[in-house]
Amino acid sequence: MNISIREGREEDLPEIFELIKELALFEKAPEQVTNTIDRMRKEGFGDNPVYSFFVAENQSGIIGAAIHYIRYSTWKGARLFLEDLIVKESFRGLGAGSLLFEKCIELGKKQGYSGMTWQVLDWNQPAIDLYNKYNSQLEAGWLNANLDY
Amino acid sequence: MNISIREGREEDLPEIFELIKELALFEKAPEQVTNTIDRMRKEGFGDNPVYSFFVAENQSGIIGAAIHYIRYSTWKGARLFLEDLIVKESFRGLGAGSLLFEKCIELGKKQGYSGMTWQVLDWNQPAIDLYNKYNSQLEAGWLNANLDY
Repeated sequence: MNISIREGREEDLPEIFELIKELALFEKAPEQVTNTIDRMRKEGFGDNPVYSFFVAENQSGIIGAAIHYIRYSTWKGARLFLEDLIVKESFRGLGAGSLLFEKCIELGKKQGYSGMTWQVLDWNQPAIDLYNKYNSQLEAGWLNANLDY
Repeated sequence: MNISIREGREEDLPEIFELIKELALFEKAPEQVTNTIDRMRKEGFGDNPVYSFFVAENQSGIIGAAIHYIRYSTWKGARLFLEDLIVKESFRGLGAGSLLFEKCIELGKKQGYSGMTWQVLDWNQPAIDLYNKYNSQLEAGWLNANLDY
């Protein structure tokens, strides 16, 4: 199966938002998605884009996406933060995840970032297995903290 | 003791970098700081600033800082990410941390972000106590992942 990777466009957002909701369901937190396509439009394709994304496609259309933004690490400087790496359930195991992941590494290197950072749920073994193939350093012991306005 | 909060300036960077190293030491990871003042200058005060910060001052000078950037949550939209909240050891317990924290909340609200996000080490009880005062939601179960170039 032929999979190609390209930069995400504004018209992809409705499909991307479906993928985001699919991932939130998988991560057992569907109620936490308060984002909207309209908000994604403004924040990704307005005057000051906060995020960008890559999509993976095959002959049936979009089968996955990698959404990323620039994070600032005071320890290591600017880095690419991989917010979501998502492959549609029926297309998993075909290499789309690796292709998207490698595209993000490539982008970060090109931009002169110090590296790439992301998070993974400690029970998401398929994802952990993928990241280990790339010699990622996985670290426990941090709590995520949120204050919603 | 009078503590005032103001926006950080480029000339504050050498002092801020000392605070960052102090925090990394407290977090038992001083060897992870590969950032430099020069890099902080470029990434914070160049053409496309990636981060900003507030400083807390009293009559003796800078006693703390809050370093932040815009993160993109696919679940909740653009948010303020509080990268580091640091108060010099000899000035802790005087309220500088709360003032800096509240300033960040205020900034995020003004910018129309959906909320504030940050991380805390699960053994850093004084910080956890502070965050609980603000009804922050703290969540375990995520691994931090890094790939350095």
